[in-house]
Amino acid sequence: MKHFEEELGDLKQRLLEMGGLVESAIYRSVLAVVEKDAEQAQQVLKNEARINQMEIEIDEFATRLLATQQPMAADLRFLTAAIKINSDLERMGDLAVNIVERALSLMHEPVIRPAIDIPQMAKLTESMVRKSLDSFVRGDAELARTILLSDDAVDDLRDTIYEELLSFMQKDSSNVRPGVNLMFVARSLERLADHATNIAEDVLFLVQGVEVRHHANLKP
Amino acid sequence: MKHFEEELGDLKQRLLEMGGLVESAIYRSVLAVVEKDAEQAQQVLKNEARINQMEIEIDEFATRLLATQQPMAADLRFLTAAIKINSDLERMGDLAVNIVERALSLMHEPVIRPAIDIPQMAKLTESMVRKSLDSFVRGDAELARTILLSDDAVDDLRDTIYEELLSFMQKDSSNVRPGVNLMFVARSLERLADHATNIAEDVLFLVQGVEVRHHANLKP
Repeated sequence: MKHFEEELGDLKQRLLEMGGLVESAIYRSVLAVVEKDAEQAQQVLKNEARINQMEIEIDEFATRLLATQQPMAADLRFLTAAIKINSDLERMGDLAVNIVERALSLMHEPVIRPAIDIPQMAKLTESMVRKSLDSFVRGDAELARTILLSDDAVDDLRDTIYEELLSFMQKDSSNVRPGVNLMFVARSLERLADHATNIAEDVLFLVQGVEVRHHANLKP
Repeated sequence: MKHFEEELGDLKQRLLEMGGLVESAIYRSVLAVVEKDAEQAQQVLKNEARINQMEIEIDEFATRLLATQQPMAADLRFLTAAIKINSDLERMGDLAVNIVERALSLMHEPVIRPAIDIPQMAKLTESMVRKSLDSFVRGDAELARTILLSDDAVDDLRDTIYEELLSFMQKDSSNVRPGVNLMFVARSLERLADHATNIAEDVLFLVQGVEVRHHANLKP
């Protein structure tokens, strides 16, 4: 039987592997929208089952450790955080699939215009996701805190994109369908940023033992 | 110190209390859209903090029981399910808030038309949420299974609503803004139904020890 420490290491590795799959899914889903790249879209749909399967396995693994090892303090926080991060990652995989579904519709629709802000929003979101996983690997509370701050920038970009798209849709009815699809893409990116923020909050809880969900303890 | 069985009972009670708050939030959010009832909208915003607080408390409570009691078999499944249901309920509270935000925008916008299908979709979603909590209380696997089937009906209604709204938006540019808001309401209702489905899957796992997430074992 493996030593408990070794099992915790395995769990972390599995989460990182899943994180890698999810990052790749997000990256490909954005390419599918921006470059109208159908091959990337198909790849995301193909990898979805693997991500879902990993979620179930990680969940069972973490729960078993939690229930059988009577972990204390730091180990207990790690297992709790792992279960939450796992759930966030699985949901992020779903969001990448949602983006791909919109991308597939957009491929048959007129191009509204070079969608300047969607790639910018995607870049910021992808960077938040990357940093959230890095902060988890390194147990880096400082890095985790920078993610909480980026979330507002993503929300601002989303508002700008919504307003731009609304005005394009009002100007020309042929823009309505692609406009709606791009709005849903922006919405999914915003949700991805929310999940990166959740992971950052879990990292802060893990490193510092401080509950920052719903910004409960962020105020001075 | 309380007996373990008694603590599990407390946990169930707290989840049901939270479920009641979430159900009420969903109901009010739909009234805010359909009846343009600003008071109901404010009530949802007011109750959000309470739901968020309950999530944190339930999570800590369940995790503590999991880590200190070395639960086996049925108790372990119950605690695992409780943690997942708690997370779903919190997210459902967020979705009710999303619906309310759309409702508040819609109050200042032209009425597209008597939105026949949104109330119908809301009614079906609310019934799924209700049944998912009932199936949890009663440990009723049969009831839980009926919820999995309703999910497709909700998706069909959403598609119909999307197409109707798109055609209204294309016909008259003054419909674009309220049309987008109603699409996001439909999207939130669909997500609420997804969470009710998650809860039903957790109940099946709880009662039968069968993993049905991602419909892994639903096929014959």
